[in-house]
Amino acid sequence: MPSRADFLIRDDIIFFNHGSFGACPRPVFQRYQAWQLELERQPVEFLLRRRQELMANARGVIADYFNVPAGQVVFVANATAGLNIALRSLQLRSGDEILTSDHEYGAVDRLLEFVSSKTGAGIRRHRVRLPYESDHAFAEAFFAQASAKTKAIVISHITSPTSLIFPVELICRRAREAGILTIIDGAHAPGQLPLDLAAIGADMYSGNFHKWLCAPKGSAFLHVRPERHDLIDPLTVSHGWYPGSDFVERNEWSGTRDIAPFLTVPAAIEYQRAREWDRVRAECHELAARAQHELCDHYGLQPLSQDQFAQMVTIPLPDCDAGAVQQRLYEAHRIEVPLGEFAGQCGIRISVQAYNSAEELARLLAALKSLIG
Amino acid sequence: MPSRADFLIRDDIIFFNHGSFGACPRPVFQRYQAWQLELERQPVEFLLRRRQELMANARGVIADYFNVPAGQVVFVANATAGLNIALRSLQLRSGDEILTSDHEYGAVDRLLEFVSSKTGAGIRRHRVRLPYESDHAFAEAFFAQASAKTKAIVISHITSPTSLIFPVELICRRAREAGILTIIDGAHAPGQLPLDLAAIGADMYSGNFHKWLCAPKGSAFLHVRPERHDLIDPLTVSHGWYPGSDFVERNEWSGTRDIAPFLTVPAAIEYQRAREWDRVRAECHELAARAQHELCDHYGLQPLSQDQFAQMVTIPLPDCDAGAVQQRLYEAHRIEVPLGEFAGQCGIRISVQAYNSAEELARLLAALKSLIG
Repeated sequence: MPSRADFLIRDDIIFFNHGSFGACPRPVFQRYQAWQLELERQPVEFLLRRRQELMANARGVIADYFNVPAGQVVFVANATAGLNIALRSLQLRSGDEILTSDHEYGAVDRLLEFVSSKTGAGIRRHRVRLPYESDHAFAEAFFAQASAKTKAIVISHITSPTSLIFPVELICRRAREAGILTIIDGAHAPGQLPLDLAAIGADMYSGNFHKWLCAPKGSAFLHVRPERHDLIDPLTVSHGWYPGSDFVERNEWSGTRDIAPFLTVPAAIEYQRAREWDRVRAECHELAARAQHELCDHYGLQPLSQDQFAQMVTIPLPDCDAGAVQQRLYEAHRIEVPLGEFAGQCGIRISVQAYNSAEELARLLAALKSLIG
Repeated sequence: MPSRADFLIRDDIIFFNHGSFGACPRPVFQRYQAWQLELERQPVEFLLRRRQELMANARGVIADYFNVPAGQVVFVANATAGLNIALRSLQLRSGDEILTSDHEYGAVDRLLEFVSSKTGAGIRRHRVRLPYESDHAFAEAFFAQASAKTKAIVISHITSPTSLIFPVELICRRAREAGILTIIDGAHAPGQLPLDLAAIGADMYSGNFHKWLCAPKGSAFLHVRPERHDLIDPLTVSHGWYPGSDFVERNEWSGTRDIAPFLTVPAAIEYQRAREWDRVRAECHELAARAQHELCDHYGLQPLSQDQFAQMVTIPLPDCDAGAVQQRLYEAHRIEVPLGEFAGQCGIRISVQAYNSAEELARLLAALKSLIG
């Protein structure tokens, strides 16, 4: 495992909230700031003459990483931006429906409401049955909500409030058979799961590099299958939008900004590759599973799933003042971890990353028990 | 004057192209990277608990700087993004027209075409008469193109290809009298001109901090008058979009990204304030005016204006292979300066910033004469 000192997180904090914003290892962060300095030393050389080649190289690396051609993927600031491009490009009408779940991210719920208010399309939110039984049962129940009105499915690969891995490959296959367009919110997936976008087969998939891949903030991607490229309007129309321009040209350049987050993604991929990240992931998952086992045992509560999670797990807790407990954990124990109401029940979302230890987890569980009982 | 060593631009380059992407002084750049490190040391503390206060403080500083209330201005990545928000929020229809000029920035021309293709609205491009005579004559000729169809005016404060200062206060006043909405592209204005947005009175005004204010890349703003707030849709719909949320809430947070460029803008303002920037500007203008005088004299050509420019000036040249001369200037003389066809005529756009000297300008003019004759 890479050491705690490899990351920039303050020494006096036990950090079990990688899921919210990620955290960047020192060597990746140094590469990031070095790109920024290089840009500043000759901005015209960097942003005019070298940019296209630099971006194409970085795009090539992420395309390989995701097993898709480089012409199908573009960098965006975050998954929210990628999903805005996807959802606001759909030409929906009154009477159409978007099928989604009640485990989606808050900002995506806002976006769905925005799209609905602009187009008159309806939003159908499938209530996910808990505990999670099986991918098959999930897909059956989900598609029971679909109808001839359903034009698009919007669903998370790993859910933000409940940390569940949804069977997106199965969902995309069934949606394709039914002629329904699929948009996947993969905010938490890259770095936490191996990701073969060709195999998943979504029409549009957006995910963050700055969360579980540990890249600098403001690095994410949008993948769109070629048969949907014509649908897509860029978030920011700039030089690349002209008759005949392609998906990458239209979406990649959105005016002068710092492109260092994008250029640093290959270094983040390399950082994990060089450290046998499959093993890191497995050890982190092991700790997350132990936390779920211990807390559910202790409180006599049923987990959201047996094992439908990766390095992040949401565990039910007895009724409590979640905000007060979270604050107390931070102020008295210096433990950063989110509590809240998840799926109608009090719970804690524990993210386990390379820099977390079994000893830290033991301290979290002990502190929690001391506060809740 | 601040010394050349205060900036990060490579020592072996003579840099007369501040206009394209700006350049950041060392102390401002250090503040920028320090914010990034602080963010990484506790991302949840920074982006969740402290963000609103940090952003409100920075927003307060820029609002004061522009003489408008803080609730009327939001940070965006660049003026292109700000103008996308403004233009894509207009509810135009077929038959409506946008009145603009033939001196607008290329990306804004693309954006106008995009909006026209989506809404069916027409674009009327006023051909600016050159040489520039007077603000009054400009406004008369410009408004002669307006009609009952004209719903919005889109015009630069300082033009990108021709470096001319357009009389935006006069244009906004006349537009208001005629019931026409005004959108000003101020990409080159902040830092190059004192900017009183209340006095200018545009409905929407977007400008960059990373150009002439010398802030880090990806820092810009959009100002919208309160009576137009309801029109505005955010570029990225996120948590802040909900019934009853205000202009700042809807537009300020667009998902996880590096907010250090925004937080550093007060340091950039302070950098210029502490160095008597009015004097710096006057000296830079003096050099720009000298360049125009010498080249127009040498080639017997009429300038685009007598003095309708600030620190950036576009000077006509005899017919030449502009691309080849620009490349030769860079490769043989290490001088970075753009040449091209501006307003139908070959020309050079010289940007003069604090780090440029009279001696550098003399070398540029000598090199140019040696290449063109």
